[in-house]
Amino acid sequence: MPRDRNAAKLAAPPVDAETRIRDDHHLSVRLWLRLLSLTKHIEGVVRQQLQSNFQTTLPRFDLMAQLERARHGLKMSELSQRMMVTGGNVTGITDGLEKEGLVVREVDAGDRRVYRVRLTPEGQRQFRRMAADHEQWVIALFDGMSERAKEQLVGLLGELKQHVTHGSRE
Amino acid sequence: MPRDRNAAKLAAPPVDAETRIRDDHHLSVRLWLRLLSLTKHIEGVVRQQLQSNFQTTLPRFDLMAQLERARHGLKMSELSQRMMVTGGNVTGITDGLEKEGLVVREVDAGDRRVYRVRLTPEGQRQFRRMAADHEQWVIALFDGMSERAKEQLVGLLGELKQHVTHGSRE
Repeated sequence: MPRDRNAAKLAAPPVDAETRIRDDHHLSVRLWLRLLSLTKHIEGVVRQQLQSNFQTTLPRFDLMAQLERARHGLKMSELSQRMMVTGGNVTGITDGLEKEGLVVREVDAGDRRVYRVRLTPEGQRQFRRMAADHEQWVIALFDGMSERAKEQLVGLLGELKQHVTHGSRE
Repeated sequence: MPRDRNAAKLAAPPVDAETRIRDDHHLSVRLWLRLLSLTKHIEGVVRQQLQSNFQTTLPRFDLMAQLERARHGLKMSELSQRMMVTGGNVTGITDGLEKEGLVVREVDAGDRRVYRVRLTPEGQRQFRRMAADHEQWVIALFDGMSERAKEQLVGLLGELKQHVTHGSRE
Protein backbone atom coordinates (compact mmCIF):
# COMPACT_ATOMS: atom_id res chain seq x y z
CA MET A 1 0.00 0.00 0.00
CA PRO A 2 1.16 3.52 -0.67
CA ARG A 3 2.50 5.52 2.21
CA ASP A 4 1.62 9.17 2.77
CA ARG A 5 -1.29 8.85 0.45
CA ASN A 6 -3.47 11.39 2.14
CA ALA A 7 -0.65 13.83 2.67
CA ALA A 8 -0.02 13.72 -1.06
CA LYS A 9 -3.64 14.35 -1.90
CA LEU A 10 -3.79 17.34 0.39
CA ALA A 11 -0.75 19.00 -1.15
CA ALA A 12 -2.69 20.91 -3.82
CA PRO A 13 -1.12 24.25 -4.71
CA PRO A 14 -3.54 27.10 -4.05
CA VAL A 15 -2.88 28.84 -7.37
CA ASP A 16 -1.61 27.51 -10.69
CA ALA A 17 -1.60 28.09 -14.43
CA GLU A 18 -5.33 27.79 -14.55
CA THR A 19 -5.70 31.05 -12.67
CA ARG A 20 -4.41 32.59 -15.91
CA ILE A 21 -7.45 31.35 -17.80
CA ARG A 22 -9.84 34.05 -18.93
CA ASP A 23 -13.25 33.68 -20.44
CA ASP A 24 -12.01 34.86 -23.79
CA HIS A 25 -9.26 32.28 -23.98
CA HIS A 26 -9.49 29.89 -26.86
CA LEU A 27 -10.60 26.34 -26.04
CA SER A 28 -7.20 24.97 -27.12
CA VAL A 29 -5.41 27.26 -24.70
CA ARG A 30 -7.74 26.24 -21.89
CA LEU A 31 -7.02 22.62 -22.74
CA TRP A 32 -3.27 23.23 -22.76
CA LEU A 33 -3.25 25.08 -19.43
CA ARG A 34 -5.38 22.36 -17.87
CA LEU A 35 -3.04 19.65 -19.14
CA LEU A 36 -0.03 21.57 -17.87
CA SER A 37 -1.42 22.35 -14.42
CA LEU A 38 -2.64 18.79 -13.88
CA THR A 39 0.66 17.27 -14.99
CA LYS A 40 2.65 19.67 -12.80
CA HIS A 41 0.48 18.83 -9.83
CA ILE A 42 0.88 15.05 -10.22
CA GLU A 43 4.60 15.49 -10.88
CA GLY A 44 4.84 17.43 -7.61
CA VAL A 45 3.15 14.62 -5.69
CA VAL A 46 5.49 12.03 -7.22
CA ARG A 47 8.52 14.21 -6.35
CA GLN A 48 7.36 14.45 -2.73
CA GLN A 49 6.73 10.73 -2.48
CA LEU A 50 10.10 9.81 -3.98
CA GLN A 51 11.77 12.16 -1.54
CA SER A 52 9.96 11.05 1.58
CA ASN A 53 9.90 7.31 0.83
CA PHE A 54 13.19 6.80 -1.01
CA GLN A 55 15.18 10.00 -0.38
CA THR A 56 15.59 10.28 -4.12
CA THR A 57 14.70 12.74 -6.85
CA LEU A 58 12.43 12.55 -9.88
CA PRO A 59 15.29 13.00 -12.40
CA ARG A 60 17.15 10.08 -10.77
CA PHE A 61 14.03 7.91 -10.89
CA ASP A 62 13.41 8.96 -14.50
CA LEU A 63 16.99 8.14 -15.53
CA MET A 64 16.80 4.68 -13.93
CA ALA A 65 13.42 4.12 -15.61
CA GLN A 66 14.94 4.83 -19.02
CA LEU A 67 17.80 2.40 -18.34
CA GLU A 68 15.46 -0.29 -17.06
CA ARG A 69 13.77 -0.42 -20.47
CA ALA A 70 17.10 -0.68 -22.34
CA ARG A 71 18.51 -4.21 -22.14
CA HIS A 72 21.88 -3.22 -23.57
CA GLY A 73 22.14 0.11 -21.83
CA LEU A 74 22.08 3.54 -23.44
CA LYS A 75 24.65 5.99 -24.72
CA MET A 76 24.72 9.24 -22.75
CA SER A 77 23.21 11.05 -25.74
CA GLU A 78 20.30 8.60 -25.90
CA LEU A 79 19.78 8.89 -22.18
CA SER A 80 19.58 12.71 -22.35
CA GLN A 81 17.12 12.50 -25.20
CA ARG A 82 14.81 10.08 -23.40
CA MET A 83 14.63 11.84 -20.05
CA MET A 84 11.10 12.96 -19.32
CA VAL A 85 11.77 15.55 -16.66
CA THR A 86 13.75 18.72 -17.11
CA GLY A 87 16.13 20.19 -14.58
CA GLY A 88 18.26 17.11 -14.11
CA ASN A 89 21.94 17.00 -15.09
CA VAL A 90 22.32 13.61 -16.79
CA THR A 91 26.10 13.39 -16.33
CA GLY A 92 25.89 14.39 -12.67
CA ILE A 93 23.08 11.94 -11.92
CA THR A 94 24.93 9.14 -13.71
CA ASP A 95 28.09 9.88 -11.71
CA GLY A 96 26.13 9.71 -8.47
CA LEU A 97 24.40 6.44 -9.37
CA GLU A 98 27.72 4.93 -10.48
CA LYS A 99 29.33 5.79 -7.14
CA GLU A 100 26.47 4.02 -5.38
CA GLY A 101 26.91 0.94 -7.57
CA LEU A 102 23.49 1.29 -9.20
CA VAL A 103 24.72 1.88 -12.77
CA VAL A 104 27.92 1.14 -14.69
CA ARG A 105 29.54 2.82 -17.68
CA GLU A 106 30.91 0.34 -20.21
CA VAL A 107 32.71 0.70 -23.52
CA ASP A 108 30.32 0.04 -26.41
CA ALA A 109 31.01 -3.31 -28.14
CA GLY A 110 30.39 -1.82 -31.60
CA ASP A 111 32.22 1.47 -31.18
CA ARG A 112 35.03 1.57 -28.65
CA ARG A 113 34.98 5.36 -28.52
CA VAL A 114 31.48 5.32 -27.02
CA TYR A 115 30.33 4.58 -23.48
CA ARG A 116 27.05 2.93 -22.63
CA VAL A 117 25.35 3.19 -19.25
CA ARG A 118 23.33 0.36 -17.79
CA LEU A 119 21.72 -0.60 -14.49
CA THR A 120 23.59 -3.06 -12.27
CA PRO A 121 21.57 -5.93 -10.73
CA GLU A 122 21.40 -3.86 -7.54
CA GLY A 123 20.22 -0.86 -9.56
CA GLN A 124 17.51 -3.01 -11.09
CA ARG A 125 16.36 -4.25 -7.71
CA GLN A 126 16.25 -0.72 -6.33
CA PHE A 127 14.42 0.66 -9.35
CA ARG A 128 11.80 -2.08 -9.23
CA ARG A 129 11.02 -1.35 -5.60
CA MET A 130 10.53 2.33 -6.43
CA ALA A 131 8.52 1.59 -9.57
CA ALA A 132 6.13 -0.67 -7.66
CA ASP A 133 5.48 2.07 -5.11
CA HIS A 134 5.22 4.70 -7.86
CA GLU A 135 2.49 2.63 -9.47
CA GLN A 136 0.60 2.49 -6.17
CA TRP A 137 0.86 6.27 -5.64
CA VAL A 138 -0.59 6.93 -9.07
CA ILE A 139 -3.37 4.39 -8.58
CA ALA A 140 -4.28 5.95 -5.23
CA LEU A 141 -4.15 9.46 -6.68
CA PHE A 142 -6.52 8.59 -9.53
CA ASP A 143 -8.79 6.22 -7.65
CA GLY A 144 -11.81 8.49 -7.46
CA MET A 145 -12.23 8.35 -11.22
CA SER A 146 -14.12 5.53 -12.93
CA GLU A 147 -12.29 3.06 -15.18
CA ARG A 148 -14.52 4.14 -18.01
CA ALA A 149 -13.58 7.82 -17.63
CA LYS A 150 -9.89 6.88 -17.42
CA GLU A 151 -10.15 4.83 -20.60
CA GLN A 152 -11.87 7.72 -22.35
CA LEU A 153 -9.11 10.04 -21.21
CA VAL A 154 -6.36 7.68 -22.40
CA GLY A 155 -8.11 7.50 -25.77
CA LEU A 156 -8.60 11.25 -26.15
CA LEU A 157 -5.06 12.03 -25.03
CA GLY A 158 -3.79 9.50 -27.56
CA GLU A 159 -5.83 11.22 -30.25
CA LEU A 160 -4.44 14.61 -29.27
CA LYS A 161 -0.92 13.20 -29.23
CA GLN A 162 -1.39 12.00 -32.80
CA HIS A 163 -2.49 15.47 -33.92
CA VAL A 164 0.32 17.17 -32.05
CA THR A 165 3.14 14.92 -33.23
CA HIS A 166 1.99 14.09 -36.74
CA GLY A 167 -0.12 17.15 -37.48
CA SER A 168 -1.12 18.11 -41.00
CA ARG A 169 1.59 19.98 -42.88
CA GLU A 170 -0.47 22.24 -45.04
CA MET B 1 -0.26 33.40 -37.98
CA PRO B 2 2.23 31.25 -36.13
CA ARG B 3 5.70 31.03 -37.52
CA ASP B 4 7.63 27.76 -37.76
CA ARG B 5 4.45 25.85 -37.33
CA ASN B 6 5.47 22.88 -39.42
CA ALA B 7 8.94 22.73 -37.96
CA ALA B 8 7.34 22.54 -34.54
CA LYS B 9 5.00 19.74 -35.53
CA LEU B 10 7.84 17.72 -36.99
CA ALA B 11 9.93 17.97 -33.83
CA ALA B 12 8.42 14.87 -32.20
CA PRO B 13 10.91 12.99 -30.05
CA PRO B 14 11.39 9.42 -31.29
CA VAL B 15 11.12 7.86 -27.84
CA ASP B 16 9.48 9.07 -24.67
CA ALA B 17 7.92 7.95 -21.40
CA GLU B 18 5.34 5.93 -23.24
CA THR B 19 7.99 3.50 -24.42
CA ARG B 20 8.08 2.47 -20.77
CA ILE B 21 4.48 1.30 -20.93
CA ARG B 22 4.00 -2.43 -20.71
CA ASP B 23 0.87 -4.42 -21.21
CA ASP B 24 0.66 -5.24 -17.54
CA HIS B 25 0.75 -1.63 -16.49
CA HIS B 26 -2.26 -0.43 -14.61
CA LEU B 27 -4.64 1.85 -16.50
CA SER B 28 -3.87 4.74 -14.13
CA VAL B 29 -0.16 4.44 -14.85
CA ARG B 30 -0.80 4.36 -18.58
CA LEU B 31 -2.93 7.49 -18.16
CA TRP B 32 -0.23 9.22 -16.13
CA LEU B 33 2.56 8.40 -18.60
CA ARG B 34 0.42 9.55 -21.49
CA LEU B 35 -0.37 12.83 -19.71
CA LEU B 36 3.30 13.33 -18.93
CA SER B 37 4.64 12.55 -22.40
CA LEU B 38 2.03 14.70 -24.12
CA THR B 39 2.65 17.64 -21.79
CA LYS B 40 6.42 17.34 -22.22
CA HIS B 41 6.05 17.25 -25.97
CA ILE B 42 3.87 20.37 -26.13
CA GLU B 43 6.14 22.12 -23.63
CA GLY B 44 9.08 21.34 -25.91
CA VAL B 45 7.32 22.88 -28.91
CA VAL B 46 6.49 26.02 -26.91
CA ARG B 47 10.12 26.27 -25.72
CA GLN B 48 11.38 26.05 -29.31
CA GLN B 49 8.90 28.64 -30.54
CA LEU B 50 9.71 31.09 -27.75
CA GLN B 51 13.39 30.67 -28.51
CA SER B 52 13.17 31.05 -32.27
CA ASN B 53 10.55 33.80 -32.35
CA PHE B 54 11.37 35.81 -29.25
CA GLN B 55 14.84 34.61 -28.17
CA THR B 56 13.38 33.95 -24.76
CA THR B 57 12.88 30.98 -22.46
CA LEU B 58 9.82 29.23 -21.08
CA PRO B 59 10.60 30.13 -17.42
CA ARG B 60 10.87 33.82 -18.41
CA PHE B 61 7.56 33.64 -20.27
CA ASP B 62 5.97 31.80 -17.36
CA LEU B 63 7.20 34.39 -14.84
CA MET B 64 5.85 37.27 -16.94
CA ALA B 65 2.55 35.42 -17.33
CA GLN B 66 2.19 35.14 -13.56
CA LEU B 67 2.88 38.86 -13.15
CA GLU B 68 0.50 39.82 -15.91
CA ARG B 69 -2.37 38.32 -13.90
CA ALA B 70 -1.39 40.17 -10.71
CA ARG B 71 -2.47 43.82 -10.83
CA HIS B 72 -0.52 44.77 -7.74
CA GLY B 73 2.49 42.61 -8.44
CA LEU B 74 3.65 39.60 -6.49
CA LYS B 75 6.06 38.94 -3.65
CA MET B 76 9.02 36.79 -4.66
CA SER B 77 7.62 33.94 -2.56
CA GLU B 78 4.25 34.11 -4.35
CA LEU B 79 6.00 34.24 -7.69
CA SER B 80 8.05 31.11 -6.94
CA GLN B 81 4.93 29.27 -5.82
CA ARG B 82 2.97 30.14 -8.94
CA MET B 83 5.62 29.26 -11.52
CA MET B 84 4.45 26.39 -13.69
CA VAL B 85 7.75 25.25 -15.13
CA THR B 86 10.65 23.87 -13.16
CA GLY B 87 14.30 24.60 -13.83
CA GLY B 88 14.01 28.36 -13.73
CA ASN B 89 15.75 30.44 -11.07
CA VAL B 90 13.13 33.02 -10.07
CA THR B 91 15.61 35.51 -8.60
CA GLY B 92 17.92 35.26 -11.60
CA ILE B 93 15.10 35.66 -14.10
CA THR B 94 13.69 38.64 -12.19
CA ASP B 95 17.13 40.29 -12.13
CA GLY B 96 17.44 39.84 -15.90
CA LEU B 97 13.96 41.23 -16.62
CA GLU B 98 14.58 44.17 -14.30
CA LYS B 99 17.80 45.06 -16.14
CA GLU B 100 15.87 45.08 -19.40
CA GLY B 101 13.20 47.36 -17.91
CA LEU B 102 10.43 44.74 -18.20
CA VAL B 103 9.74 44.38 -14.46
CA VAL B 104 10.35 46.53 -11.37
CA ARG B 105 10.81 45.62 -7.72
CA GLU B 106 8.93 47.93 -5.35
CA VAL B 107 8.59 48.12 -1.58
CA ASP B 108 5.23 46.72 -0.49
CA ALA B 109 2.83 49.47 0.69
CA GLY B 110 1.56 47.32 3.56
CA ASP B 111 4.86 45.87 4.75
CA ARG B 112 7.96 47.91 4.05
CA ARG B 113 10.25 44.93 4.63
CA VAL B 114 8.77 43.13 1.60
CA TYR B 115 9.41 43.66 -2.10
CA ARG B 116 6.81 43.15 -4.79
CA VAL B 117 7.62 42.56 -8.44
CA ARG B 118 5.42 43.84 -11.22
CA LEU B 119 5.53 44.23 -14.99
CA THR B 120 6.36 47.66 -16.38
CA PRO B 121 4.19 49.01 -19.24
CA GLU B 122 6.94 47.86 -21.64
CA GLY B 123 6.94 44.41 -19.95
CA GLN B 124 3.18 44.23 -20.42
CA ARG B 125 3.46 45.12 -24.09
CA GLN B 126 6.18 42.55 -24.65
CA PHE B 127 4.30 39.84 -22.76
CA ARG B 128 1.09 40.46 -24.69
CA ARG B 129 2.88 40.08 -28.02
CA MET B 130 4.32 36.74 -26.87
CA ALA B 131 1.03 35.58 -25.36
CA ALA B 132 -0.85 36.28 -28.61
CA ASP B 133 1.66 34.19 -30.56
CA HIS B 134 1.67 31.48 -27.88
CA GLU B 135 -2.09 31.20 -28.28
CA GLN B 136 -1.71 30.79 -32.04
CA TRP B 137 0.95 28.07 -31.64
CA VAL B 138 -1.30 26.08 -29.35
CA ILE B 139 -4.33 26.53 -31.61
CA ALA B 140 -2.27 25.36 -34.61
CA LEU B 141 -0.84 22.42 -32.69
CA PHE B 142 -4.29 21.18 -31.61
CA ASP B 143 -6.16 22.06 -34.79
CA GLY B 144 -6.62 18.51 -36.06
CA MET B 145 -8.87 17.69 -33.11
CA SER B 146 -12.59 18.50 -33.15
CA GLU B 147 -14.00 21.11 -30.78
CA ARG B 148 -16.20 18.41 -29.31
CA ALA B 149 -13.24 16.16 -28.48
CA LYS B 150 -11.37 19.12 -26.98
CA GLU B 151 -14.35 19.99 -24.81
CA GLN B 152 -14.62 16.38 -23.66
CA LEU B 153 -10.93 16.41 -22.81
CA VAL B 154 -11.20 19.66 -20.85
CA GLY B 155 -14.11 18.14 -18.92
CA LEU B 156 -12.39 14.84 -18.16
CA LEU B 157 -9.13 16.54 -17.18
CA GLY B 158 -11.11 18.80 -14.87
CA GLU B 159 -12.73 15.75 -13.31
CA LEU B 160 -9.34 14.09 -12.82
CA LYS B 161 -7.94 17.29 -11.33
CA GLN B 162 -10.76 17.29 -8.77
CA HIS B 163 -9.94 13.74 -7.76
CA VAL B 164 -6.23 14.40 -7.59
CA THR B 165 -6.39 17.62 -5.58
CA HIS B 166 -9.40 16.96 -3.38
CA GLY B 167 -9.32 13.16 -3.25
CA SER B 168 -11.25 11.23 -0.64
CA ARG B 169 -9.49 11.05 2.69
CA GLU B 170 -10.67 7.70 3.90
